[in-house]
Amino acid sequence: MGATGTPISEVGEFGLIDRIDAALGGHTAGGVHVGIGDDAAVVGFTGGSVVVSTDMLVEGRHFRRDWSTGADVGAKAAAQNMIDIAVMGARTTTLVVALGLPAELTVEWVEDLYAGMRAEAEARGAVIVGGDLVRSDRVVIAVTAMGVLELAAPILRSGAQPGDVVAVAGRLGWAAAGLSILSRGFRTPRSLVDAHRRPEPPFAAAQEAAAAGATAMIDVSDGLVADLGHIARSSGVVIEVDPTLLQVDEPVADAAAAFNADPLVWVLTGGEDHAVAATFPPDVALPAGFTAIGVVAHIEDVEVLDGPGVTVAGRVPRGGGGHDHFIG
Amino acid sequence: MGATGTPISEVGEFGLIDRIDAALGGHTAGGVHVGIGDDAAVVGFTGGSVVVSTDMLVEGRHFRRDWSTGADVGAKAAAQNMIDIAVMGARTTTLVVALGLPAELTVEWVEDLYAGMRAEAEARGAVIVGGDLVRSDRVVIAVTAMGVLELAAPILRSGAQPGDVVAVAGRLGWAAAGLSILSRGFRTPRSLVDAHRRPEPPFAAAQEAAAAGATAMIDVSDGLVADLGHIARSSGVVIEVDPTLLQVDEPVADAAAAFNADPLVWVLTGGEDHAVAATFPPDVALPAGFTAIGVVAHIEDVEVLDGPGVTVAGRVPRGGGGHDHFIG
Repeated sequence: MGATGTPISEVGEFGLIDRIDAALGGHTAGGVHVGIGDDAAVVGFTGGSVVVSTDMLVEGRHFRRDWSTGADVGAKAAAQNMIDIAVMGARTTTLVVALGLPAELTVEWVEDLYAGMRAEAEARGAVIVGGDLVRSDRVVIAVTAMGVLELAAPILRSGAQPGDVVAVAGRLGWAAAGLSILSRGFRTPRSLVDAHRRPEPPFAAAQEAAAAGATAMIDVSDGLVADLGHIARSSGVVIEVDPTLLQVDEPVADAAAAFNADPLVWVLTGGEDHAVAATFPPDVALPAGFTAIGVVAHIEDVEVLDGPGVTVAGRVPRGGGGHDHFIG
Repeated sequence: MGATGTPISEVGEFGLIDRIDAALGGHTAGGVHVGIGDDAAVVGFTGGSVVVSTDMLVEGRHFRRDWSTGADVGAKAAAQNMIDIAVMGARTTTLVVALGLPAELTVEWVEDLYAGMRAEAEARGAVIVGGDLVRSDRVVIAVTAMGVLELAAPILRSGAQPGDVVAVAGRLGWAAAGLSILSRGFRTPRSLVDAHRRPEPPFAAAQEAAAAGATAMIDVSDGLVADLGHIARSSGVVIEVDPTLLQVDEPVADAAAAFNADPLVWVLTGGEDHAVAATFPPDVALPAGFTAIGVVAHIEDVEVLDGPGVTVAGRVPRGGGGHDHFIG
C-alpha cells in the first residue's frame, strides 16, 4: 500500500535478491538439492513423473496494489497455481517464480509478496526453489508449480462419464462479489473483499475427491459454466446443471441484493474463488465439502445442444457463461 | 511486424488456444503423459531429480516488436532458459510458457512466437507441455524449463578452485553491438543485429564442459564480469581475467570502430549472447569451443580486492562491470 519504504531502484537487483533470500531464509525441504542462487534449481522427484502448471498474474488485471497487499497477491499467485496441481490428483512440492517489477516499487512490497507466497506454499508442504527478476512497468508474477501424483494416474478433464454426478466444493461467487464491491469503491463486507484478494481453494476436498475416485476434476478459474464446459468438451458429454442445487451463500446473496444484481450470475460465471468441480460415478459417496449440482448426460440425450457442452436448468447459457480474457 | 493479421480480440482466448494447439501439432515426446489442454501437464522424469529454471522477457526491455519477429522472440525465450539448464550439466526435456498478450496483438504474431519456441526446443530435444494466456498491455513471456542431469551431480557456481583455468565458449559482445546498432536506428550488419534478436548459446560446448569436469559453470546473462563475479562470490575466490586473451570478433571490432566505442566494453559487460563461462582444473584439456581467459586465485593472493570478486588486467572493474536491471 502507498509508497512508504525503499524503492527497488535504491538497492538494485542484487540488493533485492539479498532481501528475497532473507525473506526465504530457512524455507527449504528435504528434496531440494540446489535451491535459489544458481542458474537452475535441482529438486528430487520420486515416482517417475512430475506434474507441472504455470500461471501469470498481471497488475491491473488480476490484482490492484491499492486493493491488495503484497502478501495477498503472493498468496493468490501460489494458491491458484497449486490448486491446478491438486485437481490432477497431485500434490505441489516446488514453485519457481518469475517477477516483473517496476523500479519504483518498494522492496518491502516484494518482501511482503514473498512472505505471502511462502506462507501459502508452506501450508501445502511446498517450497519456492528459484526465480527470475526483471524490470517491467507493472507487476507481473509468473508462478510455475511442480508436484507429484498421489494416485497411479492423473485425474483428467476427459474422464467424465454419462451417469456421473457433478459436484462442487469451495466458494462460488464470493470473489466476483468482492471484486464488484471493490470496483464500486467500497471495502466491505470484508469477507467478500478478502475472497477476491486471497482465494481459499478447497485443497483438502480436491485431495479427497481424487482418493474417492473422481472421474474428472477442474478448478473453477474461468467461471463454473465455462470450466464445466472444458470437462464436457474434453469428455465428449453434456453436463446438466440444476441451479436449484447451487448454494448461494448468504454474504453473496446480501451483496447481490444491495447491488440489485442476480447472485446466480456471480455463482455461475465468477472465476477467482478457485472452487473445485468434479464428476463422480453415481455409486460413490461424495467426499466432505462437495455438493451435487448436476449430472453428466449422453450428447444424444440432450436436445438443446448438438455437441458437448453445459446446460443450466435445461437451457444453454448465454455466451457460454464464461469469461474470455481477450474479449470485452 | 506491423498490424497485418487477425487481432487476438477477434478470436478470443479459446480461439487463440486452438491456434496455438495447431502450431504445436505433433510437438510431443515419449515422456509426456499429459500435455497441453488440462489443468497441468504430467511428464515422466527418471533419475530421481528435476533441474528447473524460469526466465521472464518483457516487451520494450528484452525485445521490441519492431526489431524482432515473433519467432525471434520465441527462440530467444526458449534458448536463454535452456542454457540455464545446460550450464548445470543437465539437458532440458520440457518447457511451460506463461504469456501476457495485448488484445490488439495479432494471432499470427503469437503463432510465430510459438513456432520459434518450438523450433528452438526441438533443436535441444525438448517439448512445450503447457502454458497460460492472460491479457496485458505489453507482451510478457515467462518460460520455465525443466531438465534432467547428465552427470551424477550438478555443476554449481560454487565449485571454482584456486588454480583452475577460467574459459569461455560462445559469442561475447555480439548482442550488445547489435542492440547498439538497432538503438541508433540501423539494421545492419545483419550478423550483429541477429545476435541480439536470436542468441546462439553454445549448448554443445556446455555439454562438453560438463563431461570434461568443469568445476563451475554459468551462462553470461548479466555480462561476463558480472557473471564471473557470481562464480567468484559463490566459490569464495578471485577470478583474474587477462583481457589480452579475450577474443574481439571482427564484426564487433568493426562496429565499435564505426561508433568510436571500445569493443572490450561490449565483450566484458554485454549479456545477451548467453555465452558460457566455466572453470576447469589446470590439468584438464579445454573442450572444443572454449578459450582460456584467466585463472582462479586465492582471495589472499589478490591485493586489490579484500574478498571474492573479479579483476581485469589486475584491476577492479568500475561498478563491478555488470548490469543491474533496476538501476540506471
